[in-house]
Amino acid sequence: MSLRRAHIVYILFILICTQTFAEDGSQLWLRFEKVSAEISAKRTIKTKSVDPTVLLAKQELEDYWKGNNVELLIDRKLTKLKDGFKITSSGSKLQIVANKPAGLLYAAYHILQKQNEGAEITHYNVEEIPSYDIRILNHWDNLDRTVERGYAGYSLWKWAELPQVLSPRYEEYARANASIGINATVLNNVNASPQILTPEYLTKVKALADIFRKYGIKVYLSVNFSSPKVIGGLENSDPLNKDVQLWWKNKVKEIYQLIPDFGGFLVKANSEGQPGPQDYGRTHADGANMLADAIKPYSGMIMWRAFVYNPTKEDRAKQAYQEFVPLDGQFRDNVIIQIKNGPIDFQPREPFTPLFGAMRNTAQMVEFQITQEYLGFSNHLVYLAPLFKETLDSDAYADGAGTTIAKITDGTVRKISKSAIAGVANIGEDVNWTGHHFAQANWFAFGKLAWNHQLSSEDIAKEWLKLTFTKDETFVKDVTDMMLTSRETVVNYMMPLGLHHIFAFDHHYGPEPWGNMPGGRADWMPWYYHNANEKGVGFNRTTSGSNAVVQYNEPLRSLFNDIQTCPENLILWFHHVSWDHKMKSGLTLWEEICTHYDRGVQDVRAYQRLWDKMESYVDAQRFKEIQSKLKIQIKDAVWWKDACLLYFQTFSRKPIPYYIERPIHELEELKKIKLPLKHHN
Amino acid sequence: MSLRRAHIVYILFILICTQTFAEDGSQLWLRFEKVSAEISAKRTIKTKSVDPTVLLAKQELEDYWKGNNVELLIDRKLTKLKDGFKITSSGSKLQIVANKPAGLLYAAYHILQKQNEGAEITHYNVEEIPSYDIRILNHWDNLDRTVERGYAGYSLWKWAELPQVLSPRYEEYARANASIGINATVLNNVNASPQILTPEYLTKVKALADIFRKYGIKVYLSVNFSSPKVIGGLENSDPLNKDVQLWWKNKVKEIYQLIPDFGGFLVKANSEGQPGPQDYGRTHADGANMLADAIKPYSGMIMWRAFVYNPTKEDRAKQAYQEFVPLDGQFRDNVIIQIKNGPIDFQPREPFTPLFGAMRNTAQMVEFQITQEYLGFSNHLVYLAPLFKETLDSDAYADGAGTTIAKITDGTVRKISKSAIAGVANIGEDVNWTGHHFAQANWFAFGKLAWNHQLSSEDIAKEWLKLTFTKDETFVKDVTDMMLTSRETVVNYMMPLGLHHIFAFDHHYGPEPWGNMPGGRADWMPWYYHNANEKGVGFNRTTSGSNAVVQYNEPLRSLFNDIQTCPENLILWFHHVSWDHKMKSGLTLWEEICTHYDRGVQDVRAYQRLWDKMESYVDAQRFKEIQSKLKIQIKDAVWWKDACLLYFQTFSRKPIPYYIERPIHELEELKKIKLPLKHHN
Repeated sequence: MSLRRAHIVYILFILICTQTFAEDGSQLWLRFEKVSAEISAKRTIKTKSVDPTVLLAKQELEDYWKGNNVELLIDRKLTKLKDGFKITSSGSKLQIVANKPAGLLYAAYHILQKQNEGAEITHYNVEEIPSYDIRILNHWDNLDRTVERGYAGYSLWKWAELPQVLSPRYEEYARANASIGINATVLNNVNASPQILTPEYLTKVKALADIFRKYGIKVYLSVNFSSPKVIGGLENSDPLNKDVQLWWKNKVKEIYQLIPDFGGFLVKANSEGQPGPQDYGRTHADGANMLADAIKPYSGMIMWRAFVYNPTKEDRAKQAYQEFVPLDGQFRDNVIIQIKNGPIDFQPREPFTPLFGAMRNTAQMVEFQITQEYLGFSNHLVYLAPLFKETLDSDAYADGAGTTIAKITDGTVRKISKSAIAGVANIGEDVNWTGHHFAQANWFAFGKLAWNHQLSSEDIAKEWLKLTFTKDETFVKDVTDMMLTSRETVVNYMMPLGLHHIFAFDHHYGPEPWGNMPGGRADWMPWYYHNANEKGVGFNRTTSGSNAVVQYNEPLRSLFNDIQTCPENLILWFHHVSWDHKMKSGLTLWEEICTHYDRGVQDVRAYQRLWDKMESYVDAQRFKEIQSKLKIQIKDAVWWKDACLLYFQTFSRKPIPYYIERPIHELEELKKIKLPLKHHN
Repeated sequence: MSLRRAHIVYILFILICTQTFAEDGSQLWLRFEKVSAEISAKRTIKTKSVDPTVLLAKQELEDYWKGNNVELLIDRKLTKLKDGFKITSSGSKLQIVANKPAGLLYAAYHILQKQNEGAEITHYNVEEIPSYDIRILNHWDNLDRTVERGYAGYSLWKWAELPQVLSPRYEEYARANASIGINATVLNNVNASPQILTPEYLTKVKALADIFRKYGIKVYLSVNFSSPKVIGGLENSDPLNKDVQLWWKNKVKEIYQLIPDFGGFLVKANSEGQPGPQDYGRTHADGANMLADAIKPYSGMIMWRAFVYNPTKEDRAKQAYQEFVPLDGQFRDNVIIQIKNGPIDFQPREPFTPLFGAMRNTAQMVEFQITQEYLGFSNHLVYLAPLFKETLDSDAYADGAGTTIAKITDGTVRKISKSAIAGVANIGEDVNWTGHHFAQANWFAFGKLAWNHQLSSEDIAKEWLKLTFTKDETFVKDVTDMMLTSRETVVNYMMPLGLHHIFAFDHHYGPEPWGNMPGGRADWMPWYYHNANEKGVGFNRTTSGSNAVVQYNEPLRSLFNDIQTCPENLILWFHHVSWDHKMKSGLTLWEEICTHYDRGVQDVRAYQRLWDKMESYVDAQRFKEIQSKLKIQIKDAVWWKDACLLYFQTFSRKPIPYYIERPIHELEELKKIKLPLKHHN
């Protein structure tokens, strides 16, 4: 080879390597390698089924499976598997059995993931039965393609082009969801446009449903309770109005003619200005049941949101409970009450919503927020599995000790016709789907926990890291540590010790504990939540205050009510605490607050260092993009710390302990910051 | 006392305390307490002199001296004292003797300062003879009241109002200078407007001189070499033109008729666009001598600046030497060559200008820059005494070992008709005079070192702190530590290891190592100075490079020339050094650079902490203002570190060592920063 040719070969080699090594995150955790013809010839993937989902499972294995022969079987008797699967190996063969076609698809992704994680897959025996029947994403996507609280670009759904043009990303989306067991999706924002139910839009919805079906994913829609009036031309939308009932009946029929496996409706009613049955003096039960009756013949579901609160003098944290508990037992069996994990609104940390422990004769489901509305958008690295687990593992003491929210919602405690769990999606049209590469982990973790809420945050993180980046042990160990602590870190630098909702108005990105709008709703003002004054800080929800504690079952009620027993990570949620209150650490409350904020900052600095050390393990593009996000995160963490400490210091009038990194901002300068952010992308 | 009255008294007490405790820095280090009538009645301040300066000294002691009786004596025989003084105590009396009236005034301030520092003053014996005859400030003040490189507001001199209106600050200024031994001032910018020599402006100058005289301060003026042509209407300003010589003769006469004790002229000629003798093919000596001859009859001085360089291919650092050394011995004895401490331009660290060791038959003086053109303006806390001392104590080896710049310039090595030292003032009309409260220390330190260059930076810092803030030992000890390290800190976060002039263009505030203006003068571009490439960084001034080392006397020449012996704090000044070069620490050059930048940042963080701890020792206003400046400084330090490390990393292609705080900025984002700063206030 001449020197010149060698030179060209060398350049080509470099180009190829660089290209192979450059990743943009678009493949998510599905970075499977195509099998070679050689391997392909050696093993067989067999099935007798001709179901499209089973054939899809077969094709995925044909393309990527490097192990033994596989046989895919449907066994209609094995109903106890639900849409899970059982894998047994004998000799050189893996046999996969499922009750439903989707089970085989899940199993296919299961073993492909194990293969990519480097697990032993020659002899592999496992049975997987999902924790929840319905594992659903909520897209807060508007029809104009903005996404409420979306931080990954515009909506995936290109409504204007549908149904004629079908973006390849629709199928990629379905595949990604199926690969982690998600089997349902609400396409549009809970603040729903009535237009979604027009024939024009329903044909667009049908186009998406047709793509998703093969992947085992059912489509749901958010509906506007006023639809009969707005698009039906009726006089009103009163649920007891026969015309209204008929309108819904016909609309449901129309939908099922287009989409026979349509999932159902999600409804945000009489909440934050949305219409609802109360507009006509009816109850939430009246509204939900009317829809439930219309959809019942098709086995459809109504997911009715409990996120309601009004600007009354009553503590906002108490209102959902007060509104819904009296309705317990009145809902149809195809209605499920969708309850946010915490009683306020997806804060960095909240206690669980007491409604979970209180409605004993009503199906309930948890709504988590995967998109980081209150957690630094797609700029901050925050792994949410620990937050999800914290709620699911919380003991509501509904039937004595051990009545965790997981057991209440998955049907263990009381049988539920269909159990469900929802996550507000963090997905947009960004190349990497979620804005922050690590935000993919939250989509992944939601799916994994919806499938099996017994999984540990750590195992999920490790699995995701191996699939998404590399199996290298050092990398996986160190980065797992970062992920696992990241939620506590954001709590620390944003609002530790039970502080909540001291965000900048409307966009909820930065700090604004001083926020106030004369004449505005008190329950949208930070001071409503922190109540800082010269004596102390925190929301008194004890018996001497708003008495929100009474909504919790014993022993929680007494535990939360007593400042000595209240968990310190919620102390300012339940108590107005003196600046000088001695904490368990021996520090005063003021010192403890300062210490938490500083720990948050120092931990982000540690994440920066850790990530920089990982440079050699990661492709250049994703390394750099994550490094850049961490730079934003550290600046924001310092901003949060300085803003909150300097502001609260105007009340505590105590020095910030000297062992803490000093503020670099002036309070007055921070108060002037007004970010030009909307509440959607 | 009723409760109500007690309450009012309490409030009044608080008000008085608060007011007493609020300070704005306007009093500088002159926070003397008026003596009570009781003390005043007990002791006498006597003098036979009726000289206004002596009477002023007497008055200051009458007002503030709490000690024994004082007698003030002039002894014209004691010429060896120069304008110093001798204090002896016998019994209950202090006797102060001086050769000149100003000496008694300096002595008065000396004992008042000792009194305020809490020193033993009952039995006090001391003799003080100043190191330099002329201790002069250079104001770079323009006639429109802007101040070139001024960061403390507009000029003190209100030219428009003069001579009719006399601001009380003129006398305060004179008093402050006298209190630290400064006895001369150049009122206007070296980039001089010819207008200053018009009769209109000379009457204004006279008004200031009349105020300053009592304080022992002589006025000097910067003159524009083209004045004869511009305001005299002559054909040219050629120094060999008889008409020109006559014009200057007459102008000098006119000045001395107004101001009999006028000091002389400061001249920036043929430098950065200023006119000069070279415009007519004459030398600097021709120009300086022509002016010297004109002013000689009045004992006036010509201070002729050596700061000259042209955009030739020759290393800028070599040009002043090349221009002036051939003229050695040609200057009149009332000409003194004013030389900046370093060969480039007041950088955070430079080696001394080799001219100091080379002109053996020419009077020389050092020009320091008190104003922080290259040291963070009045935003950064940088105590400059260590920088001043570093130059003064440098051994130039002009007559073998021990020929320090202090000894060359103070007349020890070779007799000088009048020795002098200049500092470019950092004073403006800000309430606290210098913008940063700690910048007062640099004015103070310049005066103290001009008086006695043997003083240590530490002693000056302690004295200044006691006078300016408090005598409390903890405060003085801790804050002295901060001050003493602060210059090295700014070197570390701006340009360690001999890096220089990588500032943002024109305003010289932030970093701009990438700075370039196609077609611009190379010697105004950062790359000209840092020469970073993939191999290394630094300016090769060795024998294999620009050979600037040859301008230094042995053993410095060899010491600087050899990378193994070159002091590491100047290594990149003299060498282009490989990124992998092993430093004395064992680190590579790249690691060492990173470590220095980080140390700079961490040290500023430590200053923040230290200052915050001092809250109880300091009045609220100055505490807060200094705290705020430190916040700017830490942000700037991080900015500098990130900008320089991220930029140099594009050449070194090595990771920033992981023990170092990670960058929080993106290089591309930093490159976009364009500050709307002018080069004057």
